[in-house]
Amino acid sequence: MTILVTGGAGFVGSHLVDRLVADGQDVRIFDNFSSGRREFLSHHGEAVLTVEGDLLDLDAVKSAMKGIDMVYHLAANPDIRLGTQVTDTDLKQGTVATYNVLEAMRLEGTKRIAFASSSVVYGEADIMPTPEDYGPLFPISLYGASKLASEALITSWVGTFGLQAWIFRFANIVGSRGTHGVIFDFIHKLHRDSKNLEVLGNGRQEKSYMEVIDCANAMIHVVKNTEEHINCYNLGTKDTCSVRRIAEIVLEETGCIDASIEYTGGDRGWAGDVPRSMLNPQRLFELGFTPLHDSDDAVRLTARVLVEEIGRP
Amino acid sequence: MTILVTGGAGFVGSHLVDRLVADGQDVRIFDNFSSGRREFLSHHGEAVLTVEGDLLDLDAVKSAMKGIDMVYHLAANPDIRLGTQVTDTDLKQGTVATYNVLEAMRLEGTKRIAFASSSVVYGEADIMPTPEDYGPLFPISLYGASKLASEALITSWVGTFGLQAWIFRFANIVGSRGTHGVIFDFIHKLHRDSKNLEVLGNGRQEKSYMEVIDCANAMIHVVKNTEEHINCYNLGTKDTCSVRRIAEIVLEETGCIDASIEYTGGDRGWAGDVPRSMLNPQRLFELGFTPLHDSDDAVRLTARVLVEEIGRP
Repeated sequence: MTILVTGGAGFVGSHLVDRLVADGQDVRIFDNFSSGRREFLSHHGEAVLTVEGDLLDLDAVKSAMKGIDMVYHLAANPDIRLGTQVTDTDLKQGTVATYNVLEAMRLEGTKRIAFASSSVVYGEADIMPTPEDYGPLFPISLYGASKLASEALITSWVGTFGLQAWIFRFANIVGSRGTHGVIFDFIHKLHRDSKNLEVLGNGRQEKSYMEVIDCANAMIHVVKNTEEHINCYNLGTKDTCSVRRIAEIVLEETGCIDASIEYTGGDRGWAGDVPRSMLNPQRLFELGFTPLHDSDDAVRLTARVLVEEIGRP
Repeated sequence: MTILVTGGAGFVGSHLVDRLVADGQDVRIFDNFSSGRREFLSHHGEAVLTVEGDLLDLDAVKSAMKGIDMVYHLAANPDIRLGTQVTDTDLKQGTVATYNVLEAMRLEGTKRIAFASSSVVYGEADIMPTPEDYGPLFPISLYGASKLASEALITSWVGTFGLQAWIFRFANIVGSRGTHGVIFDFIHKLHRDSKNLEVLGNGRQEKSYMEVIDCANAMIHVVKNTEEHINCYNLGTKDTCSVRRIAEIVLEETGCIDASIEYTGGDRGWAGDVPRSMLNPQRLFELGFTPLHDSDDAVRLTARVLVEEIGRP
């Protein structure tokens, strides 16, 4: 099978490419290298075809889509907070980009798509852990709005043009090659000041974390083992980790054990941040997949590997 | 209160304007007159300020937003089937237009928005009548995708920029000044051939219908009587009407009682059509609002008034 991975040079994308190549698939990636990096794929040499292009350029997407059997659509603005400042970031890089992927698929006859959605589509859910059939869906960040809008575009293409789709609602994905997120931010902050760590919010924010290789393996496992027109799965672990706990783990792993922690206060990191989120991953487990790492473990592993990648403060 | 109604010259919009003016509000409308008509508002004379403009022009929307306290955002592509042919119609006229309305509100400090969403966000729901907290939301038409995308943009603006929002998920709205929809189509078909009525699908499609003045009154009633940050209400009746029944009613009201009815077959009118939809309007009723007309009644009333407006075949 010939597979196109959008955002294939990115954090989750490059790990997915590793798994797909190991699985014997013919892999092409499409990336604008805004946050993706060539070195994340360089170990594949010629085995992975790289198309540099922007998803907002429909002609470029169409031409990359030729001969493709299945798309893993992972490209997006990775910075949730940016949406608050430049309010059309997620509309363009999320919603319109997904439209272009789907339109290119329609025009080129590609019938299968897997999409990296997010737990943020649930907004501040009343039910936790939150199952896939939770409603109403009221995302509170512009990033979350673009994820739900993209899901809706995908299901409308299934209903109207006969696509088959996998929608993956990710927990917070962490691990090697991370280029953003709370662990990454903490390590960079400690590089600037190793005696004092500023934490946004009161540190009580609490979310599910999943290790990135677990996430890539879970996607492939679900695609192999499901056959509905629309297959929607939460990808996460069965527990959570608080921001306070993450701060402690990062201080331990960076060796900055004497640093003080300063909380900016308030129940969330920024406007649009969901203070508590916990996915119910029951359907994933029932399909025979168990992540290797729980939330705490995934956070520690990530802190360790990012300290190696970024350097010790 | 100064209110802006987008799509205010349209089918639902012009009836809403009538009710808002009767209620003593200061009303401004924004319409590109693609399907709206000046004669739907001409009885208001100077009392309603008309701004002709397109929602895709952010500067025009910003300038219409000055001094506005609340927006009723009703403008959209009214033709669900068109989305199948020109696939960016709903993306632009639905999703991007809603983004521009919200962005203009943010820039001009307007804090309240009511939005005309639709039962189509539920897709082919497993639970009928379908309540507001139904999930998962998998719309099957491109129009439905743009409605869900618009809802998500609105809730993200509530969560990020402190807006207050009313989301109304409409049943099929019918009544005077209708410019599209099954009753309108049947009457036009009978104008072309009064002996034979072609019906798309097998006629077993069955949906909730609500009369347009009931719909306008329901919106105003809910806005007056709710105060959550996000207020999401199904607007509909407690029953349904089948397409077969609509065809019979139209034949009776047009006087074409001897016409034969020919079904094109299949369970739906077109790809992306939801064959059965029935909203649960319990929350609306509990808020003290009862529609004057049930589905059957609303269909008959509409057939009668559209025959007057369009002429007898």
